[in-house]
Amino acid sequence: MVLVFASPDDDPVAWTHALRKRIPDLEVRVFPELGDPREIDAALVWLPPPGLLASLPALRAVFSLGAGVDRLLADPTLPVEVPICRMVDPSLTRSMAEFALLHVLRYHRDLDVYEAQQQRSEWRLLLPKPAEATVVGIMGLGELGGATARLLLAHGFTVKGWSRHRKAIDGIGCFAGEAELDAFLADLSVLVCLLPLTPETRGILNGDLFARLPEGARLVNLARGGHLVEEDLLAALESGRLAHATLDVFVQEPLPKGHPFWRHPRITITPHAASYSLPESGAETVAENLRRLRDGRPLLHLVDRGRGY
Amino acid sequence: MVLVFASPDDDPVAWTHALRKRIPDLEVRVFPELGDPREIDAALVWLPPPGLLASLPALRAVFSLGAGVDRLLADPTLPVEVPICRMVDPSLTRSMAEFALLHVLRYHRDLDVYEAQQQRSEWRLLLPKPAEATVVGIMGLGELGGATARLLLAHGFTVKGWSRHRKAIDGIGCFAGEAELDAFLADLSVLVCLLPLTPETRGILNGDLFARLPEGARLVNLARGGHLVEEDLLAALESGRLAHATLDVFVQEPLPKGHPFWRHPRITITPHAASYSLPESGAETVAENLRRLRDGRPLLHLVDRGRGY
Repeated sequence: MVLVFASPDDDPVAWTHALRKRIPDLEVRVFPELGDPREIDAALVWLPPPGLLASLPALRAVFSLGAGVDRLLADPTLPVEVPICRMVDPSLTRSMAEFALLHVLRYHRDLDVYEAQQQRSEWRLLLPKPAEATVVGIMGLGELGGATARLLLAHGFTVKGWSRHRKAIDGIGCFAGEAELDAFLADLSVLVCLLPLTPETRGILNGDLFARLPEGARLVNLARGGHLVEEDLLAALESGRLAHATLDVFVQEPLPKGHPFWRHPRITITPHAASYSLPESGAETVAENLRRLRDGRPLLHLVDRGRGY
Repeated sequence: MVLVFASPDDDPVAWTHALRKRIPDLEVRVFPELGDPREIDAALVWLPPPGLLASLPALRAVFSLGAGVDRLLADPTLPVEVPICRMVDPSLTRSMAEFALLHVLRYHRDLDVYEAQQQRSEWRLLLPKPAEATVVGIMGLGELGGATARLLLAHGFTVKGWSRHRKAIDGIGCFAGEAELDAFLADLSVLVCLLPLTPETRGILNGDLFARLPEGARLVNLARGGHLVEEDLLAALESGRLAHATLDVFVQEPLPKGHPFWRHPRITITPHAASYSLPESGAETVAENLRRLRDGRPLLHLVDRGRGY
């Protein structure tokens, strides 16, 4: 078996080591050193150069290094018949849920307000509230959203979830579809977006949605920049509908210098830092799928190209 | 039984209601409406005016509304023979541990670095580390420090604790006394102070202690302003020994306008916001002690004036 590895952000040495520990006869070729492309059975990729996957005639599977596959599917040269598998990695899931917990705690304990007060040398106490008084809404209840919902619930927050198809998670009010979006949004203190980016969810964080949140709600977008209508966020912060936003993802990454988000006093920016797959834990998922590929068994975590995730 | 209530920060109506729900025949008098001082059996106080307690000839117990009693003990007119009880309130404990978790998570996920980068419109990713790679040291392992240590451990951090007398907490490396301070400090990512303020701990967060931390450690002081030597903190931030500090408590509160901490780019200031007793849960502790006082049974949570907490 020959696997090609291509990512601008992940460590090829660590991934090769972690995969070969599990499948000793696996050959890993690191882009751009492809050797004979006809020998390559599978690809492990994050933001691969357009056309790379199309240039591999014997390719039988594509494994994404990230949980989201929107950019992979956006490549028009992507071979239509090759199965794509998303990353499911306990460390990626844990890191995402932890990052969401951090930002929900920040808002729950009014750290955004205190930071603004510090700029003015203003000392004004807001008495702490019990965790259950903070209502967190999570859009997207897949691998990442579900784990985040459970972690927030375990901390004591009141947690609601929304997804395209109804999910059931113990202790969490689960809402589904456009019909239940109003009821989901109406009483949220903090809205956390963990949706996959699809034609249906693109631009879902827009002025119409913000108008259905309570005055002064806070927004945390950890999914994709394409979920957010940027000018609608600026308007909602201006009007006070949203009190503050934390954004980890952007339409254009890195966020361009001069973008109004950088200097906005009520936007916190992190550089797509919420979560990454670690070779030691993520390699297990990939190795299991490589074994299945070799043995002709069904692959795990398959992407449904029709729904886009 | 007659109780006098005196606090500039706590709600007398809510406390009266919560106490009388538990002891219907309790009479609560709210300072400055004392009536006949000879009728007052007990006092429930936070920052009482100096001399108030000395003016109550029949006083048999003082209950602190806060977990720390350093300011109470600093009142030279405090009657020497009256027992003092500290506040033990599950909601106060939970709120403190939650606030510590928030700040440890902030540092663990490098939010202080990202905030500084945002000021410069700089996009630079620091790959997330697993929680166990962050070593948190907690000074003070009493009611609050112990609960904080357990919450941080449950989240997955590596947790060490230091106290005057050795404590034992499952899963936490416990250090004791001056002799073990070096070993406690040597590998900390984040130091959290939750000590009581006593003559022995006053000024313990000083340049000598900071020099024993790893380069680039972060400090969280949630205890008392008197623990910190302010100019030593500024020097340690200047030299890079400390990368960042979060301070919730100050020698003078409110922190005076013009104090250099307000404008320091690597200090986060919160206005003594970590934790407060809530009447609904804190009243249970006070009511139990009032019943014990009435029945002549030993009081709970007694302050040892000799050790100062």
